[in-house]
Amino acid sequence: MNKTSSNIMALAPNTSNKRETVCIFGTGDFGRALGQKMIQSGYPIVFGSRSPRTSNLIPKEAEVLSHTEAAQKAAIIIIAIQRQHYDFLTPLAEILRGKVLVDVSNNLKINQYPESNAEYLAQLVPGAKVVKAFNTVSAWALQSGTLDASRQVFVCGDDMEAKQMVMDIVRALGLTPLDQGSLLAAQEIENYPLQLFPMWKFPIFLSLGLTAFFFFYCLIRDVIYSYVYENKDYSFFIAISIPNRICPVVALILLALVYLPGVLAAIIQLYRGTKYSRFPDWLDKWMLCRKQLGLVALAFAFLHVFYTLIIPIRYYVRWRNEDGIISKALNNKTDPFNNTNGWLSDSYLALGILGFFFFVLLGITSLPSVSNSVNWREFRFVQSKLGYLTLILCTAHTLVYGGNRFLSPSSYRWYLPNAYMLSLIIPCIVLILKFVLIFPCLDRQLTQIRQGWERNPQYSEQSNYIINKSAV
Amino acid sequence: MNKTSSNIMALAPNTSNKRETVCIFGTGDFGRALGQKMIQSGYPIVFGSRSPRTSNLIPKEAEVLSHTEAAQKAAIIIIAIQRQHYDFLTPLAEILRGKVLVDVSNNLKINQYPESNAEYLAQLVPGAKVVKAFNTVSAWALQSGTLDASRQVFVCGDDMEAKQMVMDIVRALGLTPLDQGSLLAAQEIENYPLQLFPMWKFPIFLSLGLTAFFFFYCLIRDVIYSYVYENKDYSFFIAISIPNRICPVVALILLALVYLPGVLAAIIQLYRGTKYSRFPDWLDKWMLCRKQLGLVALAFAFLHVFYTLIIPIRYYVRWRNEDGIISKALNNKTDPFNNTNGWLSDSYLALGILGFFFFVLLGITSLPSVSNSVNWREFRFVQSKLGYLTLILCTAHTLVYGGNRFLSPSSYRWYLPNAYMLSLIIPCIVLILKFVLIFPCLDRQLTQIRQGWERNPQYSEQSNYIINKSAV
Amino acid sequence: MNKTSSNIMALAPNTSNKRETVCIFGTGDFGRALGQKMIQSGYPIVFGSRSPRTSNLIPKEAEVLSHTEAAQKAAIIIIAIQRQHYDFLTPLAEILRGKVLVDVSNNLKINQYPESNAEYLAQLVPGAKVVKAFNTVSAWALQSGTLDASRQVFVCGDDMEAKQMVMDIVRALGLTPLDQGSLLAAQEIENYPLQLFPMWKFPIFLSLGLTAFFFFYCLIRDVIYSYVYENKDYSFFIAISIPNRICPVVALILLALVYLPGVLAAIIQLYRGTKYSRFPDWLDKWMLCRKQLGLVALAFAFLHVFYTLIIPIRYYVRWRNEDGIISKALNNKTDPFNNTNGWLSDSYLALGILGFFFFVLLGITSLPSVSNSVNWREFRFVQSKLGYLTLILCTAHTLVYGGNRFLSPSSYRWYLPNAYMLSLIIPCIVLILKFVLIFPCLDRQLTQIRQGWERNPQYSEQSNYIINKSAV
Repeated sequence: MNKTSSNIMALAPNTSNKRETVCIFGTGDFGRALGQKMIQSGYPIVFGSRSPRTSNLIPKEAEVLSHTEAAQKAAIIIIAIQRQHYDFLTPLAEILRGKVLVDVSNNLKINQYPESNAEYLAQLVPGAKVVKAFNTVSAWALQSGTLDASRQVFVCGDDMEAKQMVMDIVRALGLTPLDQGSLLAAQEIENYPLQLFPMWKFPIFLSLGLTAFFFFYCLIRDVIYSYVYENKDYSFFIAISIPNRICPVVALILLALVYLPGVLAAIIQLYRGTKYSRFPDWLDKWMLCRKQLGLVALAFAFLHVFYTLIIPIRYYVRWRNEDGIISKALNNKTDPFNNTNGWLSDSYLALGILGFFFFVLLGITSLPSVSNSVNWREFRFVQSKLGYLTLILCTAHTLVYGGNRFLSPSSYRWYLPNAYMLSLIIPCIVLILKFVLIFPCLDRQLTQIRQGWERNPQYSEQSNYIINKSAV
Repeated sequence: MNKTSSNIMALAPNTSNKRETVCIFGTGDFGRALGQKMIQSGYPIVFGSRSPRTSNLIPKEAEVLSHTEAAQKAAIIIIAIQRQHYDFLTPLAEILRGKVLVDVSNNLKINQYPESNAEYLAQLVPGAKVVKAFNTVSAWALQSGTLDASRQVFVCGDDMEAKQMVMDIVRALGLTPLDQGSLLAAQEIENYPLQLFPMWKFPIFLSLGLTAFFFFYCLIRDVIYSYVYENKDYSFFIAISIPNRICPVVALILLALVYLPGVLAAIIQLYRGTKYSRFPDWLDKWMLCRKQLGLVALAFAFLHVFYTLIIPIRYYVRWRNEDGIISKALNNKTDPFNNTNGWLSDSYLALGILGFFFFVLLGITSLPSVSNSVNWREFRFVQSKLGYLTLILCTAHTLVYGGNRFLSPSSYRWYLPNAYMLSLIIPCIVLILKFVLIFPCLDRQLTQIRQGWERNPQYSEQSNYIINKSAV
Repeated sequence: MNKTSSNIMALAPNTSNKRETVCIFGTGDFGRALGQKMIQSGYPIVFGSRSPRTSNLIPKEAEVLSHTEAAQKAAIIIIAIQRQHYDFLTPLAEILRGKVLVDVSNNLKINQYPESNAEYLAQLVPGAKVVKAFNTVSAWALQSGTLDASRQVFVCGDDMEAKQMVMDIVRALGLTPLDQGSLLAAQEIENYPLQLFPMWKFPIFLSLGLTAFFFFYCLIRDVIYSYVYENKDYSFFIAISIPNRICPVVALILLALVYLPGVLAAIIQLYRGTKYSRFPDWLDKWMLCRKQLGLVALAFAFLHVFYTLIIPIRYYVRWRNEDGIISKALNNKTDPFNNTNGWLSDSYLALGILGFFFFVLLGITSLPSVSNSVNWREFRFVQSKLGYLTLILCTAHTLVYGGNRFLSPSSYRWYLPNAYMLSLIIPCIVLILKFVLIFPCLDRQLTQIRQGWERNPQYSEQSNYIINKSAV
């Protein structure tokens, strides 16, 4: 009723307000789900199919026609068909001339074909305007309506207007279009849904490697050594004692590795005297996964904190305390309070708590919605200043924990130092290098280089110009 | 073309660049606040009022005119008046023909009227284009300028162009318009601001029910039983000991209830041999609130962790320890170390910590900004793989905690088993069913069904077609 | 290549699909970075320069021309030059007539010049349409492509169409444009990247001031007093014991200060009988930083929790326990269990855990992405109802912690009460005032005032009208 009244009242203008018909080639699961969703958003839909008969699975508001008929009814055609069947489009090339073809396909493997499906489609139907879109959305998410996962739809294409039309549809479906540029980006967009945390791979494998190494290291030192020399079975150390040695060690090493590439980059820039030559590839990659390294480090720190906090609840610890006290009571012997030990114990605990606190703060600011609401200066302040403060606190925590045990020979079983001693190597190197780099003479030069200055301009004529410009 | 026209007009530059005048009917609190905000964003505003006199509360940049005069000055009219007064618009129908009317009203109760206010308005003024918007924004938020709460403005309407005009205004005010489709969506939009965590209701009431049940259960077992048989007053257990039995039990049950509906849905799909018949209503609803169930479970797990960590600080625990040690010392008796107990104690603690760690990870990935930045495959990996890992770890934590107490008769006071034994029933059922479902024969069939395959197609002619298509 | 082939094939349509040429004045670091990024997004770029020679630093796809030549090639000119050099644009005024000039500059200090750079530019070239944009983006972020920090680009300008053109470019670069209104907003936009957590300054300085005060207060009471009267060296209390007194005290005071301004505002509104007169400036500012105050309070509460949880691990605590038990064992003396102490100890711990739990919940809901996904009613429920519940729980935690020590003379060393007693003053005042304000008679009047009602309308004629309207 509402509909008709508005039709009566505004004859001419309303024609432009109706959503344009969209054609979907393919009545498979994804095509149907997308069609259903678009019908709900007010789009008239025609399905193009080899055998155009309506099925009870196809939304009843949609027409099912032959490919040719369906294509003639719409300016936008969504190709919801797998790549290996694209060749049926070649005979339709004349009808598809000037139409917008939306490639929604995905592959089964990353870089499965030499060119992306969308580029292949553009080659097959050279007269059409191909747009890549919707490949990150699953049929299930469209059907269930619960888009808990990402609402982002990556869109790319060479024709601006065609892309705009597709992005309008995306928005109408309640999704967020993200313009990724020309059709060259299709390969990356097609690989995207096949990725499983690509940036996390290096940090996670590195941490697992470190975990495995320190597990066997501690097993030898703490379980096997005791078994061999003291004939005591400490195998239950595997559950908590050894993990609680591994976690802080891995966390500290990973945290230091977050700040090492920045220091190395600064040294390279100082050495080369310019910021305009590329870093080695490994350094580039390392710098790009620093955030993930830091978050994995935070996960290990989190585990370390909880492994530490439950120490007094452990049966072994309670038994040892009891045993110690009873034997002292029976021998009528009390220890005097050792003020140095009081200081050391309280200091390393306090440093650890403060380090964990700032670490959690860093983690919170790396949440997308938080980092999106701070400006550049604030982001740098948190990630750089607070980051180094965290590294200093955690390194100091480990140093004070070692305390006066560093030189005690009992720390070197089978000539193996304690695991925490090994963990201190990289953080100390990073902190020393950083300390050297903030010396005024080096810091001033580095700042100049980062603002575009070059020490040894290779093309003297041009460089004059550049220096002029960068002064402007 | 666009270019040249703007160049021509650039002589008298401002004409095309001025924002269009907007009219607001009603000078109440919300009308004034919205007017003030729109003036700040550069819109000329006229107020339409029954008694057109300027008041000191109305922004001085705005004109106040009669309804008729005001309506003639603008193409968009915001109706900032309550629904029961809408009938004054009927005589103005001729003037409002073709205008965009923005309905900003809310009701006091959910589904207060049979039709939404916006649809009622469209019936009253059939010649106008009605758009629903701004009802989720409060006058206070507009006035104070601190939009800490949501910036989302839901917009719906039958006329695309009118909706676009309103969405442009929303954007100009620094808010985020969300197109919800046709005017049929107005009912839902009007109900939205009256909702108080609708998805959370079932999880919270369920958890409160479970909490109450287990509270009385533990009260009987731990406080009343001791009082009756041992004449000891353990009433202070109500503060920590009993909550620390309730929390893990409720957390584990809720976590299992997150994964139970998925398993049931799989069984139903396998039994029916198709994914195209609807699930029972209760299952649909249950599946939609799984995220909330999981987060409530995480809250209980969080409480359990902290209740556990403070155990050694409790006066009762310290007194009991002291008492035990002193009596042993006086009786000159020491317990030997029990290796099995060492293993059991450390294992259940380690399993608990790991379970909590993955649980927190699940919680973090369910934050909107985090889940928005992962792709579908990553989201499924976290929510499904890591979710089951969490469930397995937490169930194992409870099983090992029980340890060798399962068969000890002292665990069955008044024939009531320990609360943690009851909590294991649902998780074990879920894990066994899931284990059966990942058997290759069942898993393969389920995958096929979920890709659109049907075992017993009801309409043989069409189903042939469907199978062909889904193979495409 | 892809580009040209598609050009050949679709002669007519394509002309409108090419991105328009953009001119950049200035070949400094930022100009080059922005040019590079725009080329990647498909924009043809010409650089305008005083000495138009190509350098190896300038992207090779870009032309470098004189200012005059470059300006003629594009409708949009980005001025990537520092403000003090803007006067070279004066002779170009005729060429720049009608063009869109994008001011990307920043200053070194907040409010460095009387007018913003963009307004200064608009004065220098009166015929051009000046738009402010891109000043929040760093050259480094454009070059590295890792926009971990904010993707928001604030845009303002007097010409709607020019602003729209610039916002389209921003979107094409994968950034998020935020329309801030007319060119008057440029000053604020230019100050934005120079800010360092402006809203956090007051909360952080206040908390540091409180921390310093309570540090010396506790130092005198706990370390110096013991040293003077008992000649005992408790200096190691500085590491944990004293911070663990400061943290809860500061957290509780800050939490109460979050709710005090709301209570004061209600009293002022009730006293004045209207909500239409401005609050004093200090109250306005205070109300705007409540969220930050609350989060700083949460940080202190977090530290308090972890300082408390490690108590049983501390060497001092373990030594004291051991010493106590051994001396009791040697004197053959055992304490009977004190039920009141059991209740008090467990209650204050339970209240603390629940208070911390709700505090963490408040913190999570203040994350931008979470608060953006709740409606206004839900936001108010969490921030107001749960907020007061947290304050009540934390105040009760402190009161019960005090327990029966309030009147014990040993709590008053040198007539100084315990720090926690001082911390209770403000929370108790807030809770009492709030309790008075929810009395029905006051609450009803306050609700009316907040809905726009006035007790003593100053302009009787108009006020009649207002009351009519607000009833509408």
